[in-house]
Amino acid sequence: MCESAAFILKENKLERIMDNVVTIDPYDGKVYLTDLLGEEKIVDGVIKEIRLIDHKIIIEENN
Amino acid sequence: MCESAAFILKENKLERIMDNVVTIDPYDGKVYLTDLLGEEKIVDGVIKEIRLIDHKIIIEENN
Repeated sequence: MCESAAFILKENKLERIMDNVVTIDPYDGKVYLTDLLGEEKIVDGVIKEIRLIDHKIIIEENN
Repeated sequence: MCESAAFILKENKLERIMDNVVTIDPYDGKVYLTDLLGEEKIVDGVIKEIRLIDHKIIIEENN
């Protein structure tokens, strides 16, 4: 399976905020995440990096 | 495997630009893509949507 975990980068630390993420939609300064079960999470930030091999989505919080 | 294909959205059509993408780094109005073999492609655009289940990365070109 290809779902990934989403992390927020805060003060140089990664904080895991969602598992099994399947869609990622950045829009207007926010990132909309949806997981396998259809749950949605909206993060105030921008995508910093996505590493599919590590299954990691890293989001940087807006200041 | 979890690599995906990257597409550019142009005039409402999706144009495939890279296969086996493993990292995606949006930065400063560009999207840096790297594939399994380490090849890099730089696209002048923003991430519009990523669908991991469909293995699709959709990038909208800057005007």
